[in-house]
Amino acid sequence: MVTTDMMVEGPDFRTDWSTAFEIGYKAAAINLADVAAMGAEPTALVVALGAPDDTDVAVLEQIADGLRVACGEMAPGCGVVGGDLSHAPVLVLSITAHGDLGGAEPVTRSGARVGDVVAVSGSLGLAGLGLDLLSEYGEAARGQWPTAVTAQLAPNPPIHAARSLISAQAHAAMDVSDGLARDASRMARASGQRIDLSSELLSRWVSLLRDEVSQSVRSDEELMALVLFSGESHALLASFSPDQRLPEGFFPVGRVFSTDSAAIGGGFLTRDGEKIDPAGWHPFRR
Amino acid sequence: MVTTDMMVEGPDFRTDWSTAFEIGYKAAAINLADVAAMGAEPTALVVALGAPDDTDVAVLEQIADGLRVACGEMAPGCGVVGGDLSHAPVLVLSITAHGDLGGAEPVTRSGARVGDVVAVSGSLGLAGLGLDLLSEYGEAARGQWPTAVTAQLAPNPPIHAARSLISAQAHAAMDVSDGLARDASRMARASGQRIDLSSELLSRWVSLLRDEVSQSVRSDEELMALVLFSGESHALLASFSPDQRLPEGFFPVGRVFSTDSAAIGGGFLTRDGEKIDPAGWHPFRR
Repeated sequence: MVTTDMMVEGPDFRTDWSTAFEIGYKAAAINLADVAAMGAEPTALVVALGAPDDTDVAVLEQIADGLRVACGEMAPGCGVVGGDLSHAPVLVLSITAHGDLGGAEPVTRSGARVGDVVAVSGSLGLAGLGLDLLSEYGEAARGQWPTAVTAQLAPNPPIHAARSLISAQAHAAMDVSDGLARDASRMARASGQRIDLSSELLSRWVSLLRDEVSQSVRSDEELMALVLFSGESHALLASFSPDQRLPEGFFPVGRVFSTDSAAIGGGFLTRDGEKIDPAGWHPFRR
Repeated sequence: MVTTDMMVEGPDFRTDWSTAFEIGYKAAAINLADVAAMGAEPTALVVALGAPDDTDVAVLEQIADGLRVACGEMAPGCGVVGGDLSHAPVLVLSITAHGDLGGAEPVTRSGARVGDVVAVSGSLGLAGLGLDLLSEYGEAARGQWPTAVTAQLAPNPPIHAARSLISAQAHAAMDVSDGLARDASRMARASGQRIDLSSELLSRWVSLLRDEVSQSVRSDEELMALVLFSGESHALLASFSPDQRLPEGFFPVGRVFSTDSAAIGGGFLTRDGEKIDPAGWHPFRR
């Protein structure tokens, strides 16, 4: 299978926050996560890079290093097999990633079934926290909250978990790129079901964020909003049969129900049984 | 096999000259030509598109139409199998093209042998003439010289010729994207040989350009410069054994010699036996 993703300076990254190495690293990570989310093992990246005329060749080399190191760390055996270099007004990194399903069918977002356990492997809210802290404190955030800033600038999604989607016969899976609530809502809609997220189960991720920042920097309510609504976590969201033991590294976040409960008016996403807006509330939107 | 190419608004196309349909069509053509130049049959395109926030959705649809129609015309059986849409300050179209070699080894640029006949399938200079006329006459050029302008804005490279590279056992092949002289020089250098281009053989393409424009618009000398040095023809350049009958659609442009003739001082490219600058002279450079 094959996926593609374009990262553009400005909307997708800032060169005053990210090093060139991190830009390459993140681009690889995002694309590896897209492959992994379908249950495939990443095999090869093809990279098209657009750069302004005055770009230092060292920048291009560091981007290439970031791509290489990310593949080596997250998907050994996968590497950059081809590329193209163009002139562009800003840095543009477009990657096509290839994956091997080993003969299995790809896992899609549309197969969630009533009764399934919905679970996540990877971090939730940490990359969003990093972005918030960078927005508020600038470069100083890097030294003070390195884990959150690294999750934003050089994320480490659980690529190795891809194969367990196949072995544990996940009914549905996808990469969490636009926030848990929004992506869970998409999975539910594509499956024709409703996903109910549990605040109690999500408190695990709130606690993990609390380990990073003090109460004076972000309240519990703000951290829960980050877990639910902030993007770029690149965690794996998957739906498993309740009879299936969750694969290692997956933690439950909710359950799948039918949409026909009159009480919630046919919505695709609820939290603790009550309808919520998937776009939610983001405390420190850029 | 797989290749990738990024087209960026500004350096690679202008939205006041190209329609959105043509931008998509050309992007497909360039990528199909890259696949064909290795002897492969194009099987699938993956498209990442970056567009400014205020881009009309009709523009995106027309780009998609251009991609689809180009595949249908030049490589039936090949289509767009995946994509990604991003925000970007200008239009950016990054395509990864996949091709099937049917078990054969890819034809590379490095296999030309002494004694080979060097031949071209496709147009030479026509896309360059179109660019010159657009630069000089603007939109009016489109009505007056439609063939040349179309060769520039919606080129039709000889994708079907790809398979004959394999069947005719071409020793080397490449896509002519940066001008015949420059690309022949690259083939010669990669092969460790010298390619001698023949003015007499190239006069075929000068005559074809003369059918498009009168003497008062472009002189014979200017047309020869376009044939030799102008880019974006996306013709196929290939080197065949002299014992091999040239495949249909290929016309000879020169021969392969060794580099050790003292007379030409070890250069990789000559014309009628005399060294020339591969970057050459372009009468109406942008």
